[in-house]
Amino acid sequence: MTVDRAARPAAASREEQVLERIERARTRRPRITQERITLAHGAGGSATHALIESVFVEAFRNPELEALGDGAVLEAGGRRLAFTTDAFVVTPLFFPGGDIGDLAVNGTVNDLVMCGARPVCLSAGFILEEGFPVADLRRITASMAAAARRAGVRVVTGDTKVVQRGKADGCYVTTSGVGVTDRPSVLGPSRMRPGDVVIVSGPIGEHGVTIMIARGELDIEADLASDTAPLHEPVAALLEAAPGVRVLRDATRGGVATVLNELAAAARLGVVVREAAIPVRPVVNGACELLGIDPLYVACEGRFVAVVASRDADAALAALRAHPLTAEAAIVGRVTADNPGMVLLDTAFGGTRVVDMLVGDPLPRIC
Amino acid sequence: MTVDRAARPAAASREEQVLERIERARTRRPRITQERITLAHGAGGSATHALIESVFVEAFRNPELEALGDGAVLEAGGRRLAFTTDAFVVTPLFFPGGDIGDLAVNGTVNDLVMCGARPVCLSAGFILEEGFPVADLRRITASMAAAARRAGVRVVTGDTKVVQRGKADGCYVTTSGVGVTDRPSVLGPSRMRPGDVVIVSGPIGEHGVTIMIARGELDIEADLASDTAPLHEPVAALLEAAPGVRVLRDATRGGVATVLNELAAAARLGVVVREAAIPVRPVVNGACELLGIDPLYVACEGRFVAVVASRDADAALAALRAHPLTAEAAIVGRVTADNPGMVLLDTAFGGTRVVDMLVGDPLPRIC
Repeated sequence: MTVDRAARPAAASREEQVLERIERARTRRPRITQERITLAHGAGGSATHALIESVFVEAFRNPELEALGDGAVLEAGGRRLAFTTDAFVVTPLFFPGGDIGDLAVNGTVNDLVMCGARPVCLSAGFILEEGFPVADLRRITASMAAAARRAGVRVVTGDTKVVQRGKADGCYVTTSGVGVTDRPSVLGPSRMRPGDVVIVSGPIGEHGVTIMIARGELDIEADLASDTAPLHEPVAALLEAAPGVRVLRDATRGGVATVLNELAAAARLGVVVREAAIPVRPVVNGACELLGIDPLYVACEGRFVAVVASRDADAALAALRAHPLTAEAAIVGRVTADNPGMVLLDTAFGGTRVVDMLVGDPLPRIC
Repeated sequence: MTVDRAARPAAASREEQVLERIERARTRRPRITQERITLAHGAGGSATHALIESVFVEAFRNPELEALGDGAVLEAGGRRLAFTTDAFVVTPLFFPGGDIGDLAVNGTVNDLVMCGARPVCLSAGFILEEGFPVADLRRITASMAAAARRAGVRVVTGDTKVVQRGKADGCYVTTSGVGVTDRPSVLGPSRMRPGDVVIVSGPIGEHGVTIMIARGELDIEADLASDTAPLHEPVAALLEAAPGVRVLRDATRGGVATVLNELAAAARLGVVVREAAIPVRPVVNGACELLGIDPLYVACEGRFVAVVASRDADAALAALRAHPLTAEAAIVGRVTADNPGMVLLDTAFGGTRVVDMLVGDPLPRIC
């Protein structure tokens, strides 16, 4: 027995590993094996999921949290509210197309929008490093204010703490948001059905690659900017045009591949994606080749995945393509009854491969 | 002219300085003179106020934020909601009477309670340092869950980021909270009137002194624990018993002295406090003497200041004293038309002195 148990992990085939992962997702008891936090625990992949399930859900257990969406949807005082929070530790703080400020506001706005809610107000908690230039803080808050105006929300409350030099990398921002929704049914992976189509709202991976270039980790110059943007307008148009929207999820940490894995595991259905259908700009593909990573795993901050009933596929696509932020939306795949919990990719070369969830994110501190 | 202008700050009397501060509070344009963030900007005193007013309010300007209460009260979907956020960077993470986890939950619950709201749900954003023990994180989340149960709220959504070794001191937590309120009028300093009484809900300074002892910065052993506690029950009893409650404010960073200064400045009224009436345990007084600080400025995490119409003073005090968490509540002073914007202390020795707002907190990283 002892020999068997020790030998098993090494001998397990890829298929067995996948099945084990699915089983863990099903029973909601993923194991956290490390005794100490690693960067992977914050990267949005399977290590993050294990931490969330075995520490946070375990401690706080309640239906809203266990839904593990982009935010919680709950009844409060007879109204259906959406509530969400995100900590931002991106480095560098300023990058082409944005900074930690509009990234935080857009990120929280989008989490509310993904719940099917209309964002109402935000809070902002700042952890500042002693010695951080006040001018940089003003730049960040100006950018937050502009992003909030664009999304039609107000930053109504906040808090500031200061930590000693050498901590906090200048500035960390945690934004929370409250939204309201009148939708009778809550969006979620449990509404997914075999035959549904999978839509990606625009070219993927631009935020992540922009950050890597801004860090100087890629010796290329590229005309590329973060895709950070508030998605309330195109999503409102989508929900209006397509009542058959099953679930929305923004493709931040871990990228489109991680979102699809989360949805497949939660719905206990398969997802098949056509590689050739996924919108990716050549410069992102090129940078990813240099980095040795797959753009499917690279974070976006203004793109989302929508699963839509097939009867509404054309209406959904037309609604999205009518808005500048989602003009390049594309149907990239479909939901299947086969291969529950798995994401399969039909490659451009005619093969099929499993798109697994990574342990960590190949690009740390991206948001 | 040039000579005059240069000479004035040095020559300004204490009274002139106080008047200038009041004028700044009135015109809401305090100056932030430093070019870089200092620890004082996060300490809750006048440096924090200058930062909030000249950076955050300037950028985000809206009525809810400008009220500068413990949280924002706003209409959302036809309901009156309270919304608040707080970042916690306390060191050490564990201390007698609590840890960063229940401190964060109680702090956010209390901010909602101070708005006159019933707390409904919380979010928790974690910024973890690579290498942080998972066992410590479990201890923190267990303590958060226990505090949430005690306060009747759920932690419904969250986020986790991980930063490299040497950043984040193990763990920072940012909690946000949503509450609901049916009170027709919003509590606030604008409701204060001359003749109102000032109540402190219990012995002050215990949280701050406990932290200093836990850091080993005081060579004393004392039977003292943090006062961190959720205040929803005694405040509900108070609001029920005393319709004339004008404003509630928990005495966290900067202590009771800072709260009274904030209220006096916002109400444009004076406050006179009797030193002998302020509840302080001898061990806290002794520790403050060793540290050379005034307990009036030391943070509490389970005490609050209430300003109440004098006709309701007895009822308010009786309601508070009936609850274990506020059994030692005391009327410590009154609101005056004289000396608007100033807090005066009638000392135990029969004198009177100005209790000013400090630039920073004498005890950093206390919450």
